[in-house]
Amino acid sequence: MTAIENLDKAFESRVRLGIMSVLTASGQSDFNTLKGMLGVSDGNLASHIRALEELGYIETQKQFIGRKPNTSYSVTDAGRKAFSAHIEALSSLLNLKQQ
Amino acid sequence: MTAIENLDKAFESRVRLGIMSVLTASGQSDFNTLKGMLGVSDGNLASHIRALEELGYIETQKQFIGRKPNTSYSVTDAGRKAFSAHIEALSSLLNLKQQ
Repeated sequence: MTAIENLDKAFESRVRLGIMSVLTASGQSDFNTLKGMLGVSDGNLASHIRALEELGYIETQKQFIGRKPNTSYSVTDAGRKAFSAHIEALSSLLNLKQQ
Repeated sequence: MTAIENLDKAFESRVRLGIMSVLTASGQSDFNTLKGMLGVSDGNLASHIRALEELGYIETQKQFIGRKPNTSYSVTDAGRKAFSAHIEALSSLLNLKQQ
């Protein structure tokens, strides 16, 4: 067992760490809210969302709010589990404690 | 201020997180020890060491142990400061506590 092998490469990017953190904390979030909270470009955010979706870690909900289409994102059970394991590995490597 | 802007892109890679953690904890370490602890290839480790060196975050000591040349690495003051700021940003984002 090496010091870093439990760190999930899927969460290396700080944009992905941010997406997972925001969605875990807020339950769900739409594209523009995520974009504002993370301060990233549309293209950058979209590509990381797509990657996390392909891994099965987040999922998309499409609905109408009034007549306006709205897309929001939330963390799947698999995503929650993987993210939590990643945080545990980070905590252990960096000697941090979960609150 | 966004959720992730204090995360240092220099430490996104888990190999770099690992290098900084090992060197911070051990004071200094040679190439093979780092390689063993992180479980990465020579080329991968060398390229991340080089990048951290170019950023001024780690430095190289070359010496002889008997007749054998030995290269070891340690964290610079700038590296210690940047890594500590990164850990603080991570802790805050992920709601972790420094021990």
